Amino acid sequence: MAGTDRTREQPEGGPAIVLVEPQLGENIGTAARAMANFGLDDLRLVAPRDGWPSMSAVRAASGADRVVDGARVFATTEEAIADLQFVLATTARTRDMAKPVMSVAEAARELRAREAAGERTGVLFGREKAGLKNDDVVLAHAIVMAPVSPAFASLNLAQAVLLVGYEWYKPVATTFGDPAFGPAPVTRTGPRIPGTRTATSEEVLNFFRRLEQALDEAGFLYPPEKRPAMVRSIRNIFQRANLTEQDVRTLHGIVSALIATGGACRRGEGGDR
Amino acid sequence: MAGTDRTREQPEGGPAIVLVEPQLGENIGTAARAMANFGLDDLRLVAPRDGWPSMSAVRAASGADRVVDGARVFATTEEAIADLQFVLATTARTRDMAKPVMSVAEAARELRAREAAGERTGVLFGREKAGLKNDDVVLAHAIVMAPVSPAFASLNLAQAVLLVGYEWYKPVATTFGDPAFGPAPVTRTGPRIPGTRTATSEEVLNFFRRLEQALDEAGFLYPPEKRPAMVRSIRNIFQRANLTEQDVRTLHGIVSALIATGGACRRGEGGDR
Repeated sequence: MAGTDRTREQPEGGPAIVLVEPQLGENIGTAARAMANFGLDDLRLVAPRDGWPSMSAVRAASGADRVVDGARVFATTEEAIADLQFVLATTARTRDMAKPVMSVAEAARELRAREAAGERTGVLFGREKAGLKNDDVVLAHAIVMAPVSPAFASLNLAQAVLLVGYEWYKPVATTFGDPAFGPAPVTRTGPRIPGTRTATSEEVLNFFRRLEQALDEAGFLYPPEKRPAMVRSIRNIFQRANLTEQDVRTLHGIVSALIATGGACRRGEGGDR
Repeated sequence: MAGTDRTREQPEGGPAIVLVEPQLGENIGTAARAMANFGLDDLRLVAPRDGWPSMSAVRAASGADRVVDGARVFATTEEAIADLQFVLATTARTRDMAKPVMSVAEAARELRAREAAGERTGVLFGREKAGLKNDDVVLAHAIVMAPVSPAFASLNLAQAVLLVGYEWYKPVATTFGDPAFGPAPVTRTGPRIPGTRTATSEEVLNFFRRLEQALDEAGFLYPPEKRPAMVRSIRNIFQRANLTEQDVRTLHGIVSALIATGGACRRGEGGDR
């Protein structure tokens, strides 16, 4: 218990750790502990199976109370990441998704660069056995994979969080004068767009929902059994673009304009912008 | 259980993991599991408190049987490291010892270089709470410290093993052709997407022209003096996505569908919203 209250003296912020449908309180606790090891404290839980708060989580956290106490619970992944501007999904294998794949080290560099630029970031972790569902992965801007042996590739939840936290914290440790950890270069793989801010997940998701509703009305997302895959592939195109808030407004305008083009017959004029 | 027997197909050797006076079988099991994750299989136990073999170790190893089964027990640390040529000691804090202090990453580099040169290496991990005794640390050639937050610095045994294994395995993964873990590019402007081909400029430009024509008809790219900047910003959104040939076809379909949706309003259905 003692010791945890200094966590905030570490560099502020850091990525949110989003555990999607975690099953055992114990695993949430050990994940919280791994976060505390590396100065992370924004823990978000999506529909934890055994409810929240959890005594077994508190016990397993062995003193990382601050992280456990501050955890927030959300009903859906979309709600959990609504305020985030850059989201990574951890997976054990490459999915057939049109998304960049990063190592943990690359992911940490990207997260640091974006946090340094004032963006809000987060990392999704799936259920203990099954990992993230495709519908969760699709919400992310990129996939993170750890380099584990193909002969024994299963990392438990806390271990996956530990590796992300470790790589995140490595360059921070330098600034605290630890001689053991030389500087790591901060590079950023995504685009940096002057004068704009990256869109939040909520803004992007609102656009997706609006677009998908229009496409449903057009009969484009048909037949129903193919709809989920079609929606994922469309979302992936736009997620890769790392949309800014201005981009999202432009895209809304484009959708309105295209719909109006078809409807111009009736109203005889252009759409909104 | 299946899967562990391929461990030895991974690069041979690797440092011995020496657990000095581990207390709980469960911690030995989770440490063994962390070893298997990173292709390590030489587990050595110095005077495990609860004896050996241990059913709780087997259970906690969740399938890393080969590592647990192959573990060797020694009475003293000196015996455990007798055949090793280079030994590192993990500690949570710098001791007052005239020894080099390495980060986990530096330690992994050193271990790799020595293993490559034919030396036998090992890493010492202390008891769960107390860590290594000074008499054990003194046997090592250097000290390894993980960069943990001073606010919450306790790593459990398996986590410490995990970090060492992770850094050890990182460059190995590269040589096994995992696309996710190549040498990190200094800058990467676009995503690497498995199983698709990037669209040609011609394909992308055809889409742009078609979209812009539709937006002209909708009066969206207005007034004329602002049109060039608007076109550029729209093109930028899609260019950042590094479109594949399939993406371009999907986008054409979306434009057609949205225009058709608008057309439906003529027939009495809803317009945009």
